[in-house]
Amino acid sequence: MPKGEIAVTPNDGLSTRQRRNRPLIMVHTGDGKGKSTAAFGMALRAWNQGWSVGVFQFVKSAKWRIGEQTALETLAELHAKDGVGGPIEWHKMGSGWSWSRRQGSAEDHAAEAAEGWQEIKRRLAADTHRLYVLDEFTYPINWGWVDIDDVVQTLRDRPGNQHVVITGRRADPKLLEVANLVTEMTKVKHPMDEGQKGQRGIEW
Amino acid sequence: MPKGEIAVTPNDGLSTRQRRNRPLIMVHTGDGKGKSTAAFGMALRAWNQGWSVGVFQFVKSAKWRIGEQTALETLAELHAKDGVGGPIEWHKMGSGWSWSRRQGSAEDHAAEAAEGWQEIKRRLAADTHRLYVLDEFTYPINWGWVDIDDVVQTLRDRPGNQHVVITGRRADPKLLEVANLVTEMTKVKHPMDEGQKGQRGIEW
Repeated sequence: MPKGEIAVTPNDGLSTRQRRNRPLIMVHTGDGKGKSTAAFGMALRAWNQGWSVGVFQFVKSAKWRIGEQTALETLAELHAKDGVGGPIEWHKMGSGWSWSRRQGSAEDHAAEAAEGWQEIKRRLAADTHRLYVLDEFTYPINWGWVDIDDVVQTLRDRPGNQHVVITGRRADPKLLEVANLVTEMTKVKHPMDEGQKGQRGIEW
Repeated sequence: MPKGEIAVTPNDGLSTRQRRNRPLIMVHTGDGKGKSTAAFGMALRAWNQGWSVGVFQFVKSAKWRIGEQTALETLAELHAKDGVGGPIEWHKMGSGWSWSRRQGSAEDHAAEAAEGWQEIKRRLAADTHRLYVLDEFTYPINWGWVDIDDVVQTLRDRPGNQHVVITGRRADPKLLEVANLVTEMTKVKHPMDEGQKGQRGIEW
Protein backbone atom coordinates (compact mmCIF):
# COMPACT_ATOMS: atom_id res chain seq x y z
CA MET A 1 0.00 0.00 0.00
CA PRO A 2 1.54 3.36 -0.97
CA LYS A 3 2.42 5.75 1.84
CA GLY A 4 -0.46 7.92 2.92
CA GLU A 5 -3.22 5.80 1.45
CA ILE A 6 -5.71 4.28 3.79
CA ALA A 7 -7.28 0.85 3.64
CA VAL A 8 -10.84 1.84 4.46
CA THR A 9 -12.75 5.02 5.17
CA PRO A 10 -14.34 4.32 8.52
CA ASN A 11 -17.88 5.20 9.44
CA ASP A 12 -16.95 6.71 12.80
CA GLY A 13 -18.53 10.15 12.44
CA LEU A 14 -15.13 11.86 12.43
CA SER A 15 -13.82 14.15 9.71
CA THR A 16 -10.53 13.21 8.08
CA ARG A 17 -8.92 16.06 9.97
CA GLN A 18 -10.32 14.93 13.31
CA ARG A 19 -9.27 11.40 12.56
CA ARG A 20 -5.83 12.54 11.46
CA ASN A 21 -5.22 14.39 14.68
CA ARG A 22 -6.65 11.71 16.94
CA PRO A 23 -4.26 11.07 19.82
CA LEU A 24 -2.52 7.72 19.59
CA ILE A 25 -1.53 4.92 21.90
CA MET A 26 1.54 3.25 20.42
CA VAL A 27 3.22 0.07 21.60
CA HIS A 28 6.70 -1.14 20.64
CA THR A 29 7.06 -4.72 21.74
CA GLY A 30 8.87 -7.94 20.79
CA ASP A 31 12.27 -9.43 21.66
CA GLY A 32 14.24 -7.41 19.10
CA LYS A 33 16.15 -4.18 19.41
CA GLY A 34 14.87 -0.73 18.59
CA LYS A 35 11.77 -0.57 20.79
CA SER A 36 13.07 2.19 23.03
CA THR A 37 15.37 3.71 20.43
CA ALA A 38 12.44 4.26 18.07
CA ALA A 39 10.43 5.82 20.90
CA PHE A 40 13.24 8.28 21.60
CA GLY A 41 13.52 8.95 17.87
CA MET A 42 9.85 9.94 17.99
CA ALA A 43 10.71 12.41 20.72
CA LEU A 44 12.96 14.18 18.18
CA ARG A 45 9.97 14.79 15.95
CA ALA A 46 7.85 15.90 18.87
CA TRP A 47 10.58 18.31 20.00
CA ASN A 48 10.71 19.75 16.49
CA GLN A 49 6.95 20.35 16.63
CA GLY A 50 7.37 22.26 19.87
CA TRP A 51 5.47 19.60 21.81
CA SER A 52 5.93 18.96 25.50
CA VAL A 53 7.50 15.51 25.95
CA GLY A 54 7.58 13.47 29.14
CA VAL A 55 9.87 10.43 29.29
CA PHE A 56 9.38 7.94 32.10
CA GLN A 57 11.87 5.09 32.32
CA PHE A 58 10.67 2.07 34.23
CA VAL A 59 14.07 0.42 34.50
CA LYS A 60 16.43 -0.11 37.37
CA SER A 61 19.61 0.81 35.57
CA ALA A 62 20.09 4.34 34.36
CA LYS A 63 23.07 3.32 32.27
CA TRP A 64 21.51 2.06 29.10
CA ARG A 65 19.86 5.17 27.69
CA ILE A 66 22.33 7.81 28.81
CA GLY A 67 23.10 8.80 25.21
CA GLU A 68 19.49 9.50 24.35
CA GLN A 69 18.88 11.19 27.67
CA THR A 70 21.84 13.54 27.28
CA ALA A 71 20.96 14.40 23.69
CA LEU A 72 17.27 15.01 24.44
CA GLU A 73 18.05 17.02 27.56
CA THR A 74 20.44 19.10 25.45
CA LEU A 75 17.55 19.84 23.07
CA ALA A 76 15.35 20.64 26.09
CA GLU A 77 17.93 23.15 27.34
CA LEU A 78 17.92 24.80 23.91
CA HIS A 79 14.17 25.10 24.21
CA ALA A 80 14.46 26.67 27.67
CA LYS A 81 17.19 29.05 26.53
CA ASP A 82 16.21 29.97 22.96
CA GLY A 83 12.63 28.80 22.64
CA VAL A 84 13.39 26.43 19.77
CA GLY A 85 11.63 23.07 19.75
CA GLY A 86 9.65 21.92 22.76
CA PRO A 87 10.29 21.09 26.41
CA ILE A 88 11.41 17.57 27.30
CA GLU A 89 11.36 16.09 30.80
CA TRP A 90 13.23 12.89 31.51
CA HIS A 91 12.31 10.94 34.63
CA LYS A 92 13.69 7.62 35.70
CA MET A 93 12.97 5.04 38.28
CA GLY A 94 15.75 3.20 40.12
CA SER A 95 17.21 6.09 42.04
CA GLY A 96 13.82 7.36 43.13
CA TRP A 97 11.69 9.49 40.81
CA SER A 98 12.83 13.09 40.78
CA TRP A 99 9.45 14.35 42.00
CA SER A 100 9.29 11.82 44.83
CA ARG A 101 10.23 12.54 48.43
CA ARG A 102 10.98 8.89 49.02
CA GLN A 103 14.60 9.13 47.85
CA GLY A 104 16.63 6.26 49.14
CA SER A 105 13.65 3.96 49.37
CA ALA A 106 14.35 2.64 45.90
CA GLU A 107 14.68 -0.90 47.21
CA ASP A 108 10.93 -1.32 46.87
CA HIS A 109 10.67 -1.41 43.10
CA ALA A 110 7.01 -2.34 43.11
CA ALA A 111 6.12 0.73 45.16
CA GLU A 112 8.37 2.89 43.03
CA ALA A 113 6.78 1.66 39.80
CA ALA A 114 3.30 2.28 41.22
CA GLU A 115 4.39 5.76 42.25
CA GLY A 116 5.63 6.42 38.71
CA TRP A 117 2.32 5.35 37.27
CA GLN A 118 0.37 7.55 39.74
CA GLU A 119 2.37 10.56 38.58
CA ILE A 120 1.72 9.70 34.92
CA LYS A 121 -2.01 9.43 35.74
CA ARG A 122 -1.94 12.88 37.33
CA ARG A 123 -0.15 14.31 34.30
CA LEU A 124 -2.54 12.68 31.85
CA ALA A 125 -5.51 14.03 33.80
CA ALA A 126 -3.92 17.50 33.75
CA ASP A 127 -3.16 17.26 30.00
CA THR A 128 0.50 17.97 30.79
CA HIS A 129 2.42 16.55 27.83
CA ARG A 130 1.70 16.05 24.15
CA LEU A 131 3.89 12.92 23.97
CA TYR A 132 4.57 10.45 26.76
CA VAL A 133 7.31 7.83 26.43
CA LEU A 134 6.67 5.09 28.99
CA ASP A 135 9.87 3.17 28.49
CA GLU A 136 9.86 -0.52 29.48
CA PHE A 137 6.48 -0.01 31.08
CA THR A 138 5.33 -3.51 30.09
CA TYR A 139 7.48 -5.03 32.85
CA PRO A 140 5.87 -3.42 35.92
CA ILE A 141 2.52 -4.24 34.33
CA ASN A 142 3.48 -7.87 33.76
CA TRP A 143 4.92 -8.19 37.28
CA GLY A 144 1.63 -6.93 38.72
CA TRP A 145 3.16 -3.76 40.12
CA VAL A 146 0.83 -1.63 38.03
CA ASP A 147 -2.75 -2.71 37.36
CA ILE A 148 -3.38 -3.29 33.66
CA ASP A 149 -7.08 -2.45 33.91
CA ASP A 150 -6.23 0.87 35.53
CA VAL A 151 -3.72 1.54 32.74
CA VAL A 152 -6.21 0.71 30.00
CA GLN A 153 -8.99 2.79 31.52
CA THR A 154 -6.70 5.75 32.16
CA LEU A 155 -5.35 5.67 28.62
CA ARG A 156 -8.80 5.26 27.11
CA ASP A 157 -10.27 8.14 29.14
CA ARG A 158 -7.36 10.56 28.85
CA PRO A 159 -8.39 14.08 27.86
CA GLY A 160 -7.03 16.30 25.12
CA ASN A 161 -4.61 15.28 22.45
CA GLN A 162 -1.99 13.29 24.32
CA HIS A 163 0.04 10.64 22.49
CA VAL A 164 1.50 7.78 24.49
CA VAL A 165 4.27 5.38 23.43
CA ILE A 166 4.84 2.30 25.57
CA THR A 167 7.84 0.03 25.08
CA GLY A 168 8.83 -3.39 26.39
CA ARG A 169 8.59 -7.10 25.75
CA ARG A 170 5.47 -9.20 26.15
CA ALA A 171 2.93 -6.39 26.05
CA ASP A 172 -0.29 -7.38 27.77
CA PRO A 173 -3.10 -8.28 25.32
CA LYS A 174 -5.28 -5.62 26.94
CA LEU A 175 -2.61 -3.06 26.14
CA LEU A 176 -2.48 -4.20 22.52
CA GLU A 177 -6.26 -3.94 22.43
CA VAL A 178 -6.35 -0.30 23.52
CA ALA A 179 -3.37 0.63 21.29
CA ASN A 180 -3.87 2.27 17.89
CA LEU A 181 -0.46 1.27 16.62
CA VAL A 182 1.51 -1.82 17.61
CA THR A 183 4.91 -2.68 16.18
CA GLU A 184 6.75 -5.86 17.03
CA MET A 185 10.54 -5.72 16.89
CA THR A 186 11.83 -9.21 16.15
CA LYS A 187 15.41 -10.30 16.53
CA VAL A 188 16.56 -11.90 13.29
CA LYS A 189 20.26 -11.83 14.07
CA HIS A 190 22.14 -10.38 17.02
CA PRO A 191 25.87 -9.97 17.66
CA MET A 192 25.47 -11.47 21.13
CA ASP A 193 24.72 -14.73 19.31
CA GLU A 194 28.25 -14.45 17.94
CA GLY A 195 29.67 -13.86 21.40
CA GLN A 196 29.74 -10.08 21.24
CA LYS A 197 28.80 -7.99 24.24
CA GLY A 198 27.16 -4.59 24.12
CA GLN A 199 29.35 -1.63 23.25
CA ARG A 200 29.43 2.05 24.04
CA GLY A 201 27.65 4.22 21.49
CA ILE A 202 25.66 1.30 20.18
CA GLU A 203 23.95 -0.13 23.25
CA TRP A 204 24.02 2.99 25.40
CA MET B 1 18.77 -14.28 28.28
CA PRO B 2 19.67 -11.50 30.74
CA LYS B 3 21.10 -8.28 29.32
CA GLY B 4 24.81 -8.46 28.74
CA GLU B 5 25.15 -12.23 28.80
CA ILE B 6 26.35 -13.94 25.68
CA ALA B 7 25.17 -17.21 24.23
CA VAL B 8 28.59 -18.64 23.35
CA THR B 9 32.21 -17.61 23.63
CA PRO B 10 33.41 -17.83 20.07
CA ASN B 11 36.72 -19.24 18.99
CA ASP B 12 37.57 -16.32 16.71
CA GLY B 13 40.96 -15.31 18.11
CA LEU B 14 39.59 -11.97 19.34
CA SER B 15 39.74 -10.70 22.91
CA THR B 16 36.46 -9.75 24.55
CA ARG B 17 37.48 -6.11 24.20
CA GLN B 18 38.26 -6.48 20.50
CA ARG B 19 35.02 -8.33 19.98
CA ARG B 20 33.09 -5.76 21.98
CA ASN B 21 34.38 -2.91 19.86
CA ARG B 22 34.01 -4.68 16.54
CA PRO B 23 32.30 -2.42 14.05
CA LEU B 24 28.75 -3.47 13.22
CA ILE B 25 26.53 -3.72 10.19
CA MET B 26 22.96 -3.31 11.39
CA VAL B 27 19.80 -3.77 9.33
CA HIS B 28 16.31 -2.60 10.30
CA THR B 29 13.84 -4.22 7.98
CA GLY B 30 10.22 -5.44 7.87
CA ASP B 31 6.89 -3.81 7.06
CA GLY B 32 6.39 -2.18 10.45
CA LYS B 33 7.18 1.27 11.73
CA GLY B 34 10.30 2.30 13.63
CA LYS B 35 13.01 1.20 11.19
CA SER B 36 14.25 4.70 10.43
CA THR B 37 13.16 6.19 13.74
CA ALA B 38 15.29 3.67 15.64
CA ALA B 39 18.25 4.42 13.35
CA PHE B 40 17.95 8.13 14.09
CA GLY B 41 17.60 7.30 17.78
CA MET B 42 20.96 5.53 17.50
CA ALA B 43 22.41 8.74 16.11
CA LEU B 44 21.55 10.38 19.44
CA ARG B 45 23.80 7.92 21.24
CA ALA B 46 26.55 8.35 18.68
CA TRP B 47 26.33 12.14 19.04
CA ASN B 48 26.63 11.79 22.79
CA GLN B 49 29.81 9.73 22.30
CA GLY B 50 31.28 12.49 20.16
CA TRP B 51 31.18 10.28 17.07
CA SER B 52 31.00 11.59 13.54
CA VAL B 53 27.63 10.62 12.06
CA GLY B 54 26.72 10.59 8.37
CA VAL B 55 23.05 10.25 7.42
CA PHE B 56 22.18 9.41 3.80
CA GLN B 57 18.52 9.35 2.91
CA PHE B 58 17.66 7.34 -0.17
CA VAL B 59 14.14 8.65 -0.49
CA LYS B 60 12.48 10.98 -2.91
CA SER B 61 10.50 12.98 -0.43
CA ALA B 62 12.33 15.07 2.11
CA LYS B 63 9.15 15.62 4.07
CA TRP B 64 8.94 12.55 6.21
CA ARG B 65 12.00 12.92 8.42
CA ILE B 66 12.14 16.67 8.81
CA GLY B 67 11.67 16.42 12.58
CA GLU B 68 14.64 14.14 13.07
CA GLN B 69 16.74 16.11 10.60
CA THR B 70 16.07 19.43 12.34
CA ALA B 71 16.72 17.99 15.80
CA LEU B 72 19.94 16.21 14.77
CA GLU B 73 21.19 19.22 12.85
CA THR B 74 20.51 21.33 15.93
CA LEU B 75 22.72 18.96 17.93
CA ALA B 76 25.34 19.16 15.17
CA GLU B 77 25.34 22.97 15.41
CA LEU B 78 25.89 22.69 19.13
CA HIS B 79 28.89 20.49 18.41
CA ALA B 80 30.26 23.02 15.93
CA LYS B 81 29.68 25.91 18.32
CA ASP B 82 30.44 24.49 21.76
CA GLY B 83 32.22 21.23 21.03
CA VAL B 84 29.64 19.11 22.83
CA GLY B 85 28.68 15.79 21.26
CA GLY B 86 29.84 14.91 17.78
CA PRO B 87 29.38 16.21 14.24
CA ILE B 88 26.34 15.05 12.23
CA GLU B 89 25.96 15.44 8.47
CA TRP B 90 22.56 14.91 6.88
CA HIS B 91 22.43 14.27 3.15
CA LYS B 92 19.38 13.48 1.13
CA MET B 93 18.58 12.34 -2.32
CA GLY B 94 15.63 13.73 -4.25
CA SER B 95 16.75 17.32 -4.66
CA GLY B 96 20.24 16.30 -5.75
CA TRP B 97 22.87 15.32 -3.15
CA SER B 98 24.42 18.37 -1.53
CA TRP B 99 27.93 17.39 -2.71
CA SER B 100 26.80 16.76 -6.29
CA ARG B 101 27.18 19.22 -9.14
CA ARG B 102 24.26 17.61 -10.95
CA GLN B 103 21.62 19.76 -9.24
CA GLY B 104 18.38 19.78 -11.14
CA SER B 105 19.04 16.40 -12.68
CA ALA B 106 17.14 14.68 -9.93
CA GLU B 107 14.74 13.14 -12.44
CA ASP B 108 17.15 10.27 -12.93
CA HIS B 109 16.70 8.58 -9.58
CA ALA B 110 18.76 5.55 -10.53
CA ALA B 111 21.78 7.70 -11.35
CA GLU B 112 21.25 9.74 -8.23
CA ALA B 113 21.09 6.66 -6.03
CA ALA B 114 24.26 5.28 -7.63
CA GLU B 115 25.93 8.61 -7.05
CA GLY B 116 24.93 8.52 -3.39
CA TRP B 117 26.41 5.06 -3.01
CA GLN B 118 29.67 6.11 -4.69
CA GLU B 119 30.05 8.92 -2.17
CA ILE B 120 29.38 6.53 0.71
CA LYS B 121 32.04 4.19 -0.71
CA ARG B 122 34.54 7.04 -0.80
CA ARG B 123 33.72 7.98 2.78
CA LEU B 124 33.97 4.39 4.00
CA ALA B 125 37.36 4.04 2.29
CA ALA B 126 38.50 7.28 3.92
CA ASP B 127 37.21 6.19 7.35
CA THR B 128 35.13 9.37 7.50
CA HIS B 129 32.33 8.61 9.94
CA ARG B 130 31.95 6.41 12.98
CA LEU B 131 28.24 5.80 12.28
CA TYR B 132 26.52 5.76 8.89
CA VAL B 133 22.74 5.77 8.61
CA LEU B 134 21.78 4.58 5.13
CA ASP B 135 18.08 5.29 5.33
CA GLU B 136 15.78 3.33 3.00
CA PHE B 137 18.85 2.01 1.22
CA THR B 138 17.20 -1.37 0.58
CA TYR B 139 15.04 0.17 -2.16
CA PRO B 140 17.78 1.30 -4.60
CA ILE B 141 19.42 -2.08 -4.00
CA ASN B 142 16.21 -3.97 -4.72
CA TRP B 143 15.49 -1.85 -7.80
CA GLY B 144 18.94 -2.67 -9.17
CA TRP B 145 20.17 0.91 -8.97
CA VAL B 146 22.96 -0.09 -6.62
CA ASP B 147 24.75 -3.43 -7.00
CA ILE B 148 24.24 -5.64 -3.95
CA ASP B 149 27.54 -7.48 -4.45
CA ASP B 150 29.38 -4.16 -4.49
CA VAL B 151 27.58 -3.15 -1.31
CA VAL B 152 28.40 -6.40 0.46
CA GLN B 153 32.07 -6.34 -0.54
CA THR B 154 32.46 -2.67 0.37
CA LEU B 155 30.86 -3.19 3.77
CA ARG B 156 32.88 -6.33 4.45
CA ASP B 157 36.18 -4.67 3.48
CA ARG B 158 35.61 -1.31 5.14
CA PRO B 159 38.57 -0.15 7.25
CA GLY B 160 38.63 1.11 10.81
CA ASN B 161 35.77 1.04 13.23
CA GLN B 162 32.83 2.24 11.16
CA HIS B 163 29.29 1.20 12.13
CA VAL B 164 26.63 1.13 9.43
CA VAL B 165 22.84 1.03 9.91
CA ILE B 166 20.72 0.26 6.86
CA THR B 167 16.93 0.62 6.89
CA GLY B 168 14.16 -0.39 4.53
CA ARG B 169 11.75 -3.15 3.64
CA ARG B 170 12.68 -6.44 2.00
CA ALA B 171 16.39 -6.36 2.76
CA ASP B 172 18.35 -8.50 0.30
CA PRO B 173 19.41 -11.88 1.75
CA LYS B 174 23.04 -11.01 0.96
CA LEU B 175 22.67 -7.90 3.08
CA LEU B 176 21.24 -9.93 5.96
CA GLU B 177 24.16 -12.33 5.54
CA VAL B 178 26.82 -9.63 5.94
CA ALA B 179 24.94 -7.93 8.79
CA ASN B 180 25.84 -8.53 12.43
CA LEU B 181 22.50 -7.38 13.73
CA VAL B 182 19.16 -7.66 11.96
CA THR B 183 15.89 -6.50 13.46
CA GLU B 184 12.58 -6.97 11.75
CA MET B 185 9.88 -4.42 12.54
CA THR B 186 6.51 -6.08 12.06
CA LYS B 187 3.22 -4.26 11.86
CA VAL B 188 0.82 -5.76 14.36
CA LYS B 189 -1.71 -2.94 14.27
CA HIS B 190 -1.64 0.37 12.45
CA PRO B 191 -4.01 3.37 12.61
CA MET B 192 -4.17 3.48 8.81
CA ASP B 193 -6.06 0.21 9.09
CA GLU B 194 -8.68 2.21 10.99
CA GLY B 195 -8.76 4.84 8.28
CA GLN B 196 -6.35 7.27 9.92
CA LYS B 197 -3.81 9.14 7.85
CA GLY B 198 -0.38 10.19 9.03
CA GLN B 199 -0.16 13.19 11.32
CA ARG B 200 2.34 15.89 12.06
CA GLY B 201 4.70 15.10 14.92
CA ILE B 202 4.01 11.39 14.64
CA GLU B 203 4.80 10.52 11.04
CA TRP B 204 7.18 13.38 10.29
